[in-house]
Amino acid sequence: MSTPITHGGGIAVAAAAFGGSPEDWLDLSTGINPCPVPLPDIPARAWHRLPDRHLVDEARRAARDHYGSGEILPLPVPGTQSVIQLLPRLVEAGRLVGVTGERVDMTDNRIAVTDDSIAVTDNKVAVISPTYGEYARAFASAGFAVDAVDDIAAIGAGHRLAVIVNPNNPDGLAWRAEMLIALHGRMKAAGGFLVVDEAFGDTDPALSLASRAPQLSNLIIFRSFGKFFGLAGLRLGFAIARGDILARFEDWLGPWAVSGPALSIAGSLLRSDVSAIRSRINERCTGLHAMLNGAGLRMAGGTALFTLVADARAGDIYTHLCRHHILVRKFDYAPNWLRFGLTPDPAADRRLGEALQRFER
Amino acid sequence: MSTPITHGGGIAVAAAAFGGSPEDWLDLSTGINPCPVPLPDIPARAWHRLPDRHLVDEARRAARDHYGSGEILPLPVPGTQSVIQLLPRLVEAGRLVGVTGERVDMTDNRIAVTDDSIAVTDNKVAVISPTYGEYARAFASAGFAVDAVDDIAAIGAGHRLAVIVNPNNPDGLAWRAEMLIALHGRMKAAGGFLVVDEAFGDTDPALSLASRAPQLSNLIIFRSFGKFFGLAGLRLGFAIARGDILARFEDWLGPWAVSGPALSIAGSLLRSDVSAIRSRINERCTGLHAMLNGAGLRMAGGTALFTLVADARAGDIYTHLCRHHILVRKFDYAPNWLRFGLTPDPAADRRLGEALQRFER
Repeated sequence: MSTPITHGGGIAVAAAAFGGSPEDWLDLSTGINPCPVPLPDIPARAWHRLPDRHLVDEARRAARDHYGSGEILPLPVPGTQSVIQLLPRLVEAGRLVGVTGERVDMTDNRIAVTDDSIAVTDNKVAVISPTYGEYARAFASAGFAVDAVDDIAAIGAGHRLAVIVNPNNPDGLAWRAEMLIALHGRMKAAGGFLVVDEAFGDTDPALSLASRAPQLSNLIIFRSFGKFFGLAGLRLGFAIARGDILARFEDWLGPWAVSGPALSIAGSLLRSDVSAIRSRINERCTGLHAMLNGAGLRMAGGTALFTLVADARAGDIYTHLCRHHILVRKFDYAPNWLRFGLTPDPAADRRLGEALQRFER
Repeated sequence: MSTPITHGGGIAVAAAAFGGSPEDWLDLSTGINPCPVPLPDIPARAWHRLPDRHLVDEARRAARDHYGSGEILPLPVPGTQSVIQLLPRLVEAGRLVGVTGERVDMTDNRIAVTDDSIAVTDNKVAVISPTYGEYARAFASAGFAVDAVDDIAAIGAGHRLAVIVNPNNPDGLAWRAEMLIALHGRMKAAGGFLVVDEAFGDTDPALSLASRAPQLSNLIIFRSFGKFFGLAGLRLGFAIARGDILARFEDWLGPWAVSGPALSIAGSLLRSDVSAIRSRINERCTGLHAMLNGAGLRMAGGTALFTLVADARAGDIYTHLCRHHILVRKFDYAPNWLRFGLTPDPAADRRLGEALQRFER
């Protein structure tokens, strides 16, 4: 079993340590839109019945039109996490059966012919890092060797699969479509897969590869529904890929993987005009930036849904904010980083700003 | 990829073939309580935030008290189906690494030493059949040999895992706890697992092994939330097993596998007095039986949530009912069987009764 990763959202833990009622904390530890879209009507049958074909098909068509995936009907999944868990199996299913060649183990300069050596050599994946930690965890847990690389150029023919979160979490780094398509070409030529996680792509649709997916086999795009709409509790994401890959995911998830209410809500909201949601997020982002600037903090990256701050005093700022019952995200692997999610309104901006000002003095 | 199984609930397909608007059909093709329990209040945060530890813990404690699983906190899963999909992996993880012995292939009386033969011999499971088809599909899809056996006595040391649905779907066959515990003892002694699916166990709690689970390693119990409460669209089930097995399932499902609304609803309803729900189901069952008896149909089994009819004219009755826009469940493997789910009210009983009377004439 692998060690769980600490994600954002640990308000209860923080309140236990620093006091206050969890409801009174200002939670800036996630990348979720803090202004949830009002829920559309959910028909009683969506709760009562097993999610039927009609409900699934409606959500898929709405997702296709929203994400612009052309002839691909995105597959609804119970959170992107559920398909991240399946990626090791996808790579295993794609492996040649009956590997017979001997392999040189360069570590100690001898020919290694044990099954173990072959398995390790065949099961190497690359994750552009640092990023969302669950990719590395899922692959390591399934016995894969995970190369945390910092650039596309470091991804080579030895990798059976590569993961790029675009734009990236937590630094907001974005890759242009042409670079990803060139990488896809290299991966595919070697029989490998490219995963592009567009979990934070909704505020910058121009980055998306969704419209190219119908032409690119071995490309897998993940979209998150809950972050942009502020409905992360729903557990809904979409996988966009050509039919053979989606059929595998569907088979492995089994029937009725996504709840009826989630499908019903997606069918409505993905057909709605989202420009007001985007404007609101941008307005909230501007408010956050003003507070961070006012406190003299250096913004090192981010997306419209979160901002990364780089500061040598990050650990102290984190603790100081906790004392003011404000939770942000810190990173074990980068002690000078803090990630600030959006506040829900200008009053919360001021609350953050005042807490940060007190740290300055 | 495996062939999808046709489950109940194909109203849209039936309406396309026999006419009528899907909403006007009487759907008796499922085993779901047709009288959904009113939804409790769902807090806004359950929709908005990732399902946090607190929400999960509350649902687990409520499930423990409701199912009577003692020191085991049942694991919430996004529908039992999601853990059925993981059972092959559980068996694989339990296999001894590095099988070295040669095995006699009795089919053609020679020593078989290929990897394939070993894999097949090591990967045999038993499913008491006929039953819910997804167990056999999931194991066959993962390369296992599935023995469909009709009695506990046919389950032997060669089976790495055995599945019993108790009470069984569709025939309602119920196994006494002592027989299951004896079988568990045999399975465990050979390093195997016993899965007891109590999806239809809520109307007959005395059958449940949940209270015995803390003492029985390698036993896995599945409970369905949606069937009894009439909320199948939620996608919620619980796995009851000792900690090591639940930890594996949790690891393989990944974080936030179950939606916030589902956890919130479970936390409320599993703590409520369910006697009225049980009475209502029993009343509906009595109504159904009266109609089937009135039509002279032979009841061959069932649970409080569905009744199995055995009749040589089953195919014709099915078609006749479709012409009256009533859908029941038929079975490819047993052409003389029909499964009738409950109707929502006495008016629907009468509608069914009248349609059946017209068949008689």
